[in-house]
Amino acid sequence: MPRLTGALEPRGSWQATGCSLARAIDVVSTRSAFLLLREACYGTTRFDDFAARAGISEPVAAARLRELVEAGLMTREEYREPGQRARLAYRLTEKGAGLFPALVALMEWGDQWLTEDGGPIGFRHRDCGEPVQVELRCAAGHHAGPGDLDVVHRR
Amino acid sequence: MPRLTGALEPRGSWQATGCSLARAIDVVSTRSAFLLLREACYGTTRFDDFAARAGISEPVAAARLRELVEAGLMTREEYREPGQRARLAYRLTEKGAGLFPALVALMEWGDQWLTEDGGPIGFRHRDCGEPVQVELRCAAGHHAGPGDLDVVHRR
Repeated sequence: MPRLTGALEPRGSWQATGCSLARAIDVVSTRSAFLLLREACYGTTRFDDFAARAGISEPVAAARLRELVEAGLMTREEYREPGQRARLAYRLTEKGAGLFPALVALMEWGDQWLTEDGGPIGFRHRDCGEPVQVELRCAAGHHAGPGDLDVVHRR
Repeated sequence: MPRLTGALEPRGSWQATGCSLARAIDVVSTRSAFLLLREACYGTTRFDDFAARAGISEPVAAARLRELVEAGLMTREEYREPGQRARLAYRLTEKGAGLFPALVALMEWGDQWLTEDGGPIGFRHRDCGEPVQVELRCAAGHHAGPGDLDVVHRR
């Protein structure tokens, strides 16, 4: 695990106020929000598809999608197919798409620790076909495990 | 965003049953669980410290820590300081520590999208001092953005 440094050491001298993890969880705090974001990453856009594919009720899907739009993670637009009534389509914003690595990291953890067979879905690099994983890397390109990290205070 | 391939295309032909992201969220589903895991990553072990540092009530902390122990993410052991009553210490298991990249990914997203100043805490590679981030990389070492990925069915 990482080592606390500088003003962060000893741990008893500070509290994690303004923690960005807490802020993130305040925005995406429900199972259904995670599953709707997953579906959006897979390309789902129609309201009916979101509810069915995430396996949640339509009222819950509607409430959650509204929250995700209000939080700036998705946009909502009307579309109309010939002869049909207007329907709503939802798409990830850049902010919403920014959660993709976190979703993959959670999925990888589930693959490793909560399945017998590595899980149903994997990601591959289109150019070379190799499997893709979430890694911790420093700006110099070194792979850095949790035990290789110092936690620093930015202010 | 990634492209669905093989048996996953078209999207309407399958549903994400057995999804490892859903399984992961079923295990770690609450704000308080995420914050307790964060504290454990920072080295907190004592019950009193967990509640105070995560900013949650002692009953909620107790219930959540019990769930994390039952799910195999933490271990609980008694310890006794000289002249004091026995107290409980909690430590991450390997399974619990495996969530570290997901916590960092969520924190990074919060840093980027939910703060004005990049957030209070950063991670640096101890060996070289460079800042550390979560990245998507393939086994051949290529950096792979969401748009460079194919989603494949493993079974």
